[in-house]
Order: sequence, then structure tokens, then C-alpha cells
Amino acid sequence: MKKKIESIMFKRNNLKYLGLAIATIFCFHWILTIVNPKSSFSRPWGVTELDTTQDDTYIQDQKTINDPNKTKPTQTGKAKAAFVVLIRNGDLHSFRSSMRQLEDRFNHKYNYPYVFLNDEPFNEEFIKLTSAMTKGKTEYGLIPREHWSVPMDIDMNIVRKNMEKMREEQVLYGDSLPYRHMCRFESGFFYRHELLDKYDYYWRVEPGVQFYCDLDYDPFVFMKKYDIRYSFTISLYEYPKTIPTLWDSVREFGKLHPQYIEKDNLMDFISSDNGATYNLCHFWSNFEIADLNLWRSEAYTKFFSFLDSKGGFFYERWGDAPVHSIAAALFLKKHQIHFFNDIGYRHEPFSHCPADEKIQLKCHCNPHDSFDFHGYSCTGKFLDLKAKWATIASNVTRN
Amino acid sequence: MKKKIESIMFKRNNLKYLGLAIATIFCFHWILTIVNPKSSFSRPWGVTELDTTQDDTYIQDQKTINDPNKTKPTQTGKAKAAFVVLIRNGDLHSFRSSMRQLEDRFNHKYNYPYVFLNDEPFNEEFIKLTSAMTKGKTEYGLIPREHWSVPMDIDMNIVRKNMEKMREEQVLYGDSLPYRHMCRFESGFFYRHELLDKYDYYWRVEPGVQFYCDLDYDPFVFMKKYDIRYSFTISLYEYPKTIPTLWDSVREFGKLHPQYIEKDNLMDFISSDNGATYNLCHFWSNFEIADLNLWRSEAYTKFFSFLDSKGGFFYERWGDAPVHSIAAALFLKKHQIHFFNDIGYRHEPFSHCPADEKIQLKCHCNPHDSFDFHGYSCTGKFLDLKAKWATIASNVTRN
Repeated sequence: MKKKIESIMFKRNNLKYLGLAIATIFCFHWILTIVNPKSSFSRPWGVTELDTTQDDTYIQDQKTINDPNKTKPTQTGKAKAAFVVLIRNGDLHSFRSSMRQLEDRFNHKYNYPYVFLNDEPFNEEFIKLTSAMTKGKTEYGLIPREHWSVPMDIDMNIVRKNMEKMREEQVLYGDSLPYRHMCRFESGFFYRHELLDKYDYYWRVEPGVQFYCDLDYDPFVFMKKYDIRYSFTISLYEYPKTIPTLWDSVREFGKLHPQYIEKDNLMDFISSDNGATYNLCHFWSNFEIADLNLWRSEAYTKFFSFLDSKGGFFYERWGDAPVHSIAAALFLKKHQIHFFNDIGYRHEPFSHCPADEKIQLKCHCNPHDSFDFHGYSCTGKFLDLKAKWATIASNVTRN
Repeated sequence: MKKKIESIMFKRNNLKYLGLAIATIFCFHWILTIVNPKSSFSRPWGVTELDTTQDDTYIQDQKTINDPNKTKPTQTGKAKAAFVVLIRNGDLHSFRSSMRQLEDRFNHKYNYPYVFLNDEPFNEEFIKLTSAMTKGKTEYGLIPREHWSVPMDIDMNIVRKNMEKMREEQVLYGDSLPYRHMCRFESGFFYRHELLDKYDYYWRVEPGVQFYCDLDYDPFVFMKKYDIRYSFTISLYEYPKTIPTLWDSVREFGKLHPQYIEKDNLMDFISSDNGATYNLCHFWSNFEIADLNLWRSEAYTKFFSFLDSKGGFFYERWGDAPVHSIAAALFLKKHQIHFFNDIGYRHEPFSHCPADEKIQLKCHCNPHDSFDFHGYSCTGKFLDLKAKWATIASNVTRN
């Protein structure tokens, strides 16, 4: 069994396609950088200056500020779930617009709580204006110092040199240390914040995103009911220059811990050659509705520690999107990853807008603007694979 | 009395400020043109090509399409009022976003109807997707040919020559004939559409606008209660090149029909020299909540006919904003014009966002982005005048 899994993961065939794929994706990212140089490619924390002042001493001790105005939470949603928002005070107004839409399209009927996380203390204005927008509970947490700092064994001289090189090569956020902290935090720490201990599911929300469609059911309950552990609305290709050695590390982990690799996995979504190479497909993690226990699992805990020990979050610029996506694709069963087609969503510069006529009546976006079937989206591939698996399953049942 | 009014209107003093004011406003508009060349400065219909194909024969006979899906309107608002939307099919998705916000912030509690007007027939998709967004009634009307065509006495050779000149001078929409039709229609015809006959009040809405604040009272009922006839959220200076002879025509009308000029008027808002010159201040008419009977009145009917006979809607590029604003300022009493501070609103490129702390809790905009106290807004002047009048009124009462 062990050998079979390894063989599936690491068989090197179809290498000829890799060069072509990388060239195509390079062009895509180059176009993105030109067309939309200021947009957050996947998340905020977009400090593009070379930040060398950041060290592990400036972050205060963790302090949790409880919402002062809410003593009786009014949640009616049935899941142990919360919105999780990594945000700074300066993003207040841009987040209020997103929060307004999230409340209007969905949460005013369920009043799920919000957990706001920040590497600096939230100010009074932030707390007052966000708590006023929902009937749900709002909690404000400071990120512990050890979750937002450079580990002792990282050589900052190499990090600085690599960031400088990425700046020259115009890699998006390639020269930002805060962005690296953010990616590492979202990869391995957000779900360990004590404010999240009481929840099973989370919905990640970012400032500036938009929600386009009325959602008249509870996606958390839906996930629980159908044993879904991870979900997305937009998928695309990662910028290869940010993850030169990520896949090598994943392969190494797979060899060391084959027991964690799910047999019925989604390898075909992230690799077009049975695991020999990474095809760069990932779920765009600025939107995620997922099971916190996926990240709390032994498999993911070891996976993150292994990746973190490689230093790629700092020496390269590993994003939490490929890290989460690869983990979900390898550790989960096929049916445990879900595409929320009916959640119309925009994070600049891409949208998901449902084309289905019945769903459209609950939306206010233009399906022609949807990124889904754009050549650089991986969602078509995901849906094709799902259809293929459904056919296989149906044949198996019939036979 | 007649002489006194004329004297107030046309006394030429303080002329020395006019040159300075015009120079300042020219700079402002020039900056706007450079910074935001594609934005609709005040409304859609922004065809910037020289459109010479438009004539009075292409518009079909009026046809009113009643919303096919709604047989039982569910209005709970107490006023005879409707939203009025001049729009084309191509603006559907941009309008759905505005309509969504209008419903969420206000109308889901009142279900006021919508009247959509178009110079071309609405298509099925437009009707289906807009009627799905509200519990209120939706009606779709075709603009009668005579309300969207060039009058017989207009010399199109002169119009074309002037449009060409405005194009060279980069006057916003200066070379657009459809834009001129739109301005003339909004100035003198929209309220005559038979679909509006049954209403007393209207709220004008445009595609792409945003509403930022929960409104927990009915502005139509509020207007009725306080005898308000016209209201606004943003005011600013008009581009002088679009109205070189408008004020001369207004003065001429005032001399011919002094009986229509209200004694207790708002002349001080639109003229800084007692009527000698127009200071270019106007209410930005892409947002209006107003009394339809203001435009149906004898005074305004004659005023519009008089202006229309001058040909300035075509030879120049008179906007409905200065035309409505001047009429409201001259025909109404001071208290009949209202600034809706609590309606947070954006029409590119300007916003009104309430700074008041209590109102802010119901909004999701940044008060620092508000145009209100920008040097090119006239809202400060309006509020100063209101405060001054209130002081005078209070002194009169005390003495």
C-alpha cells in the first residue's frame, strides 16, 4: 500500500507538459502584475516595501478584547462556527462594506459570530463600528507573538537577499515580510488562536471582498450534513516563483508519512502527472469555509511543522492558498471538498458569479464576468474531475 | 414687489469674484477630466462619440410593459411614491448592484414600486432580473418619441459644430447627443410619463450608485410631513462651458414671469451677488427625492418651455442638475429644500458619507471620503445659509 501511494504521488511522467504550463502561468501572472499592480493577489497585508524592521519583539502579549456591547449573543445558526477575519485597524472601512454584504446576503438570518484577529491591538473605533453591524457576537483577538515572528533558525540575511531578488523580478508581495507572516499565520496558526477553540467550522472573510447572492441555507450545517471539510468559490494557478521547492517538500513529507495520504484523494486536481509535479492549481484561500478539525488533525499539524522547518514561508514566499489546497487535496476524500457555486463572490481582481438561471435570480453580478471558465481558473478542471468520478462511481454501482 | 424681486435677482455687484470663481471651477473640472476620464460626471448615457445618427424617427411608439410576475403589489410605505430609473438594457448588472443596496438599506421594509424608463424597449432579461430583486411592483415604460428627439426648430448643423468644439475642449459629454437627450428628458419630461401619473413623490436612482446607510424612516413620508419638495445628498459646481447662456435665460424668464419667483427663496445658494450671476452651485441630480408636483407646476412648466425654446439643451449642453437646482432655488421656500445627511450615497467619483457618530453606526462608508466639505462641494454653503436663516428666524421670534 505504502509503495503504491508513493508511486501514485511521485511517478514522473508527462514532464513535457510542465515547461509549457509554467510558461503559460508566468505570462498570466506577468499580465496580472501589469494590469493590476496594486491589487492584493490573494489577501491583504500587501506591504510591498522591503520590511526589515519586523522582528519577534514588537508584538505585544496576547490580549482578547470582548465585545463590550453584546452580553446576549443572538445566534440562531445551528453550527459551532464563526467568521474569521485577519485584519488591521486601517482596513476598517473596507471591511465594513464586506461585512455589510455578508450580513445582508446571509448572516442576518443566522447571526454567527465574528472573530477578528490582528497582530496589533484593535482600536475602539474598529470595535465600535464592526460590532454595530451585526446581531452576532464579535470577538477581537491579538495574535500571540510566536505566531507572527521569524523563527530562530531562519537566516534573515538569506531572506533579505531573496526578497530583494523577488523585488527585482516583480514577484507580487515578493519583498514583503509582513505578507510572509500573514501567509505563515493563515497556514499554520490562525486555527490555534484560543478564540477559535470553541468552534468546529470557520468562514474566512477579508476586507474589500464582495458577496453577490442571497444564500438561503446554512453552509456550515450543509458541510456537516454532507461531511464536507473544505470549500472554495474561486481556484487558479499559483505563481511558480513563490514556491520553487514547495512540491519537493510535499513529496518528502509523503515519503516520510504515507499513512496520512488519503487513498480517495484529490491528487488529480493538484497534479497532472500522478504527483510527480505540482500543476499549481489551488483554491483561492481568501474565501474558505472549512472544518477547523482539518487543520487541527495530526496529519496537518505534522505537515505544517514539516513545511515550516523547511523555511520556505520566509526563504521563498509560500502562500497559505497552495499549502491549504495541497493539504486538503491529499488528506481529504474527494467528496469532502466542495465548490460553493451559489456563493457569488469577488476578491479583486476575480469574481465567481453563478451562471445558473435560478441562482442568478438571487444574485446581482454578471455571470459573464465570472472567472470560473477563464483559462487560468482551475475550477473547470475541478468540475470535470467531479463529473468523471461521479460517472465512475455510477458505473461501479451499476456493475 | 415686482421691481424688488428683479432688483434682488439681477443686481450686478461683486462681479469681481466671478472671474476667480470660474477659473477655480475650470481647474476643478479639468482635474476631474484628467483623473477620471471615463466616469459619468453626473449620470449614465455617457456616449462620448459624436452621435449624428440619432434623429426623431428611430424611437418606437410608447409601450408600457407591466411586470409579468407581480399581480399583488405588497407596498407597505404610506406615500404615493416610486423609484424612477432612466436606464438602458446594457446597464442591467450595474443597476442590480444599486437596487440590491437600495432594497437592503431601505426598501425591503416599504416595498415602494420602481418605474424603469428607456428610450428602447426593455428586454426580457432586464425585466426578469430586476423584478426578482424586490417585493415592490416594477413597471417598465418606453419613452415617447417626442420626449427624446431633437425639436424641429433646432439647427443640427450648429449643434454638430458646437459638439465638435466641446470635444476639442474636452468638455465632459460635450460631444454626445444622447447625453443631451437625457439631460433634456430629465429636465422636462420624465415626470410626464404616464407611469408616473399616479405618484406624488419620486426617488431618482441610477445604475452604479451606492447606498451606505440603513434608513429607518420613510423619506417620502418625512418630506410630506415637513412640506419638503426637493432634496439632495451631494452638491457641487457646474462646468461653465456647458451653460454659457443658461443664467441669461433664467434672468429673462424672471423678468417675464416675476410672479413665479418665491419671495422666501434660496437665491443665495445659487448666486453670490443677489442674482446678477450664477455661482454654478447645483444639487447633483443623479440622486433626487422630490415632489413630482414641483415639476408639474405652472411655474416649472413655463420655465422648462422657456428654456427649451432657447435651444440650450442642444446648442450648449445644459444639464438637468443646474436646471432643476435653479428652479428649486427660485420657486420653492427655503425650508422646502432638504439635505438628506443620513442617506450615505456614492455616484462616481463622489460620495456623501455622514460624519455624525450616531448615524455612522448605521453606515459602512468612511466619512473622511465624503465630498461634503471638499472645496468644490456647495453643501457647506447650503448648511451655512440654513444656519444663518435659522438664527435670523430665531431672532425675529425673540424680538
